[in-house]
Amino acid sequence: MVVELISVGTEILLGNIVNTNAAYLADQCARLGLSCFYQSVVGDNEERLTQVLDMAAGRSDIVILSGGLGPTKDDLTKETAAKYFGKKCFMDESVKAEITEYFQKMGREITENNWKQALVPEGAIVVHNENGTAPGIIMEEGKCCVILLPGPPNELIPMFEKEIVPYLQKKSPEIIYSQMVKVCGIGESKAETMVADLMEKQGNPTLAPYAKTGEVHFRVTAKAENKKEARKLTQPMVKELKRRFGNSIYTTEEEVTLEQSVVELLLANKLTVSTVESCTAGLLAARLVNVAGASEVFKSGYITYSNKAKRRMIGVKKSTLEKYGAVSEQVAVQMVKGAAMLSKADVAVGITGIAGPDGGSEEKPVGLVYIACFVNGTVTVKEYHFSGNREKIRQSSVSNALIFMRECILEDYSKKMFK
Amino acid sequence: MVVELISVGTEILLGNIVNTNAAYLADQCARLGLSCFYQSVVGDNEERLTQVLDMAAGRSDIVILSGGLGPTKDDLTKETAAKYFGKKCFMDESVKAEITEYFQKMGREITENNWKQALVPEGAIVVHNENGTAPGIIMEEGKCCVILLPGPPNELIPMFEKEIVPYLQKKSPEIIYSQMVKVCGIGESKAETMVADLMEKQGNPTLAPYAKTGEVHFRVTAKAENKKEARKLTQPMVKELKRRFGNSIYTTEEEVTLEQSVVELLLANKLTVSTVESCTAGLLAARLVNVAGASEVFKSGYITYSNKAKRRMIGVKKSTLEKYGAVSEQVAVQMVKGAAMLSKADVAVGITGIAGPDGGSEEKPVGLVYIACFVNGTVTVKEYHFSGNREKIRQSSVSNALIFMRECILEDYSKKMFK
Repeated sequence: MVVELISVGTEILLGNIVNTNAAYLADQCARLGLSCFYQSVVGDNEERLTQVLDMAAGRSDIVILSGGLGPTKDDLTKETAAKYFGKKCFMDESVKAEITEYFQKMGREITENNWKQALVPEGAIVVHNENGTAPGIIMEEGKCCVILLPGPPNELIPMFEKEIVPYLQKKSPEIIYSQMVKVCGIGESKAETMVADLMEKQGNPTLAPYAKTGEVHFRVTAKAENKKEARKLTQPMVKELKRRFGNSIYTTEEEVTLEQSVVELLLANKLTVSTVESCTAGLLAARLVNVAGASEVFKSGYITYSNKAKRRMIGVKKSTLEKYGAVSEQVAVQMVKGAAMLSKADVAVGITGIAGPDGGSEEKPVGLVYIACFVNGTVTVKEYHFSGNREKIRQSSVSNALIFMRECILEDYSKKMFK
Repeated sequence: MVVELISVGTEILLGNIVNTNAAYLADQCARLGLSCFYQSVVGDNEERLTQVLDMAAGRSDIVILSGGLGPTKDDLTKETAAKYFGKKCFMDESVKAEITEYFQKMGREITENNWKQALVPEGAIVVHNENGTAPGIIMEEGKCCVILLPGPPNELIPMFEKEIVPYLQKKSPEIIYSQMVKVCGIGESKAETMVADLMEKQGNPTLAPYAKTGEVHFRVTAKAENKKEARKLTQPMVKELKRRFGNSIYTTEEEVTLEQSVVELLLANKLTVSTVESCTAGLLAARLVNVAGASEVFKSGYITYSNKAKRRMIGVKKSTLEKYGAVSEQVAVQMVKGAAMLSKADVAVGITGIAGPDGGSEEKPVGLVYIACFVNGTVTVKEYHFSGNREKIRQSSVSNALIFMRECILEDYSKKMFK
């Protein structure tokens, strides 16, 4: 089956925002085994939107439109789609009740224009929006199926995953099964070299690598008549990846993030953690705490951006700062020792570095970062050289701190196993 | 003049990459005063590419295609465009020489397929690529102009800025000037209501609002014969926005962010700041420190996610935690008082809330957040109700903490003025 994506929104046409919805939807559709040959962007304009919709409906089986479902006069995706298929819109009482409830929960008053969002085209399927007031809409007309989704990603993504994926799965005769293998601490090109032969020989299943900061994700995808069969087809490839990447695989589950695997590792070993951050200034703690269960393991976070804070908050010695500088192995070590002692955490991770754009020197260039890790009394420290702008360097530091923490905990654990 | 963008590439259709080229080109075209009504994405497929090109050439004055200029057989954008206009391709000796030089400089050997990139459609303008081997191509056919650009952003962006911008400026008789007005602390719908009459009456200049978390950005854009004249046309509208939004405007500069304006406000008033965060766990500090000059004002950051950390690190009273709970006005106040005292900062901002998905109750639902701000001994605290998932609630908390901090500092400053 062929799917086509239409993004509606002037802010995309003006380049005010990057069209991440299209990338998300395209990726999801690919995983569902749907072919996508065209994507379009069009503004909130009835004539042009009708033209694009007409073209898409004529050449694709499923058309997914996102955006333009808001309460204002500008938003006319639903009205245009309804008119295109010759359908009238009616007030849907259940949507009206949901909107009322949503506003009550938020403690905000409903304005008259909000009721526009409760209008539903005749015969359409209404899709519940748990993060906003615009419901999704599915219209099936002849062999074409048109799906309308709200534009804000925090509404679109949960709606797509909970409601649209099961709907699309039912429409497809073939079942797609994909298994994720997430690797950390191995560079993209090295990881791809390690699977070059598998990439070359791939058929059913396919093997697709995807790199992100400090990580490479491999997706193994197979098609078959049923899920069991498709899953069976992926297993030899998954097994081979496990053999090649060993401990560098932190999860084989789609939704598990690196920080989540680290929190789970801490939980499994009954360890608590504290962070002490200079150049990243809270980003590492924030990422750990993004894991919903982090409260079980997270003790304290110290943001010691200035030298004074390093001394006062966690007792880094003035002499060490003067002799080696704030960005040094020695200071990184004292940071984690101080944080661990003060917070009584089993694990402490510290980051000190030069994120730029200023502050670099020949000896200590922008991108130089030290990460120290304290695990049950043992401190290990590592030197990193990251490239890119300030934000990129800070993000790389955080990802690598998580990877390093994971390695140190696994190491500590394996030592104990052999004792 | 009307421009249309076509991005060519299977990796975009599969959702492997986000289409940042389209956002970049759209933004650049908007600044040049070109209207963009459509964007499309299509794969490396002659038939489908021809169809999209034909549609675009029929309805727009300028069509910009990006991607598909590589040396492999898959890359067929140039060949397809040439064929569409009935032009043959010839070997261009100067491009051939440039490719030879490029490979010599890189110390790499030229493979036979690279010469494909030196083929140029008859009558086309060749655009030099200083970062790669695929030249840009401009074809002018009747009233339509087709521009082909290489896909990699590090080739496309410099080529566009150095070669294509001057080319397009020459085609356009008018100059565009745009002025940004960034507003914070006023909701999107309220802000839009406040300018509804201006939106209604807009002509030259135009007024375009764009909402992001806690902020609304207004772009005022005018067209005229020269920059001075265009700038002059924007001024009455900018003045009117200033009159209506007053202190809620944090900047009128394109590149200044909310956190940057807060850091500048602190610097201007010679104030230092500390943060103390519970549910946001470092995100606020990290956002402040993302401003390159933050080291001048940032003192310490305390991440007190657990009750124990709130007590131990910054001296929140056990009795207060027991009586009112960690997410309460009273705890927020003690958090900032403790942080200010310990760090000797002039300003302290504290966040405590329920980010979810768990931990909510009828009395204290997910999304309830207290933000306290200490400025020179005076503490103000505010209750917020945010919606969305865990990440959205945390991001809203951070944006609103910045806005609240700004308000409290301005208030403190205005009090002093009147003393």
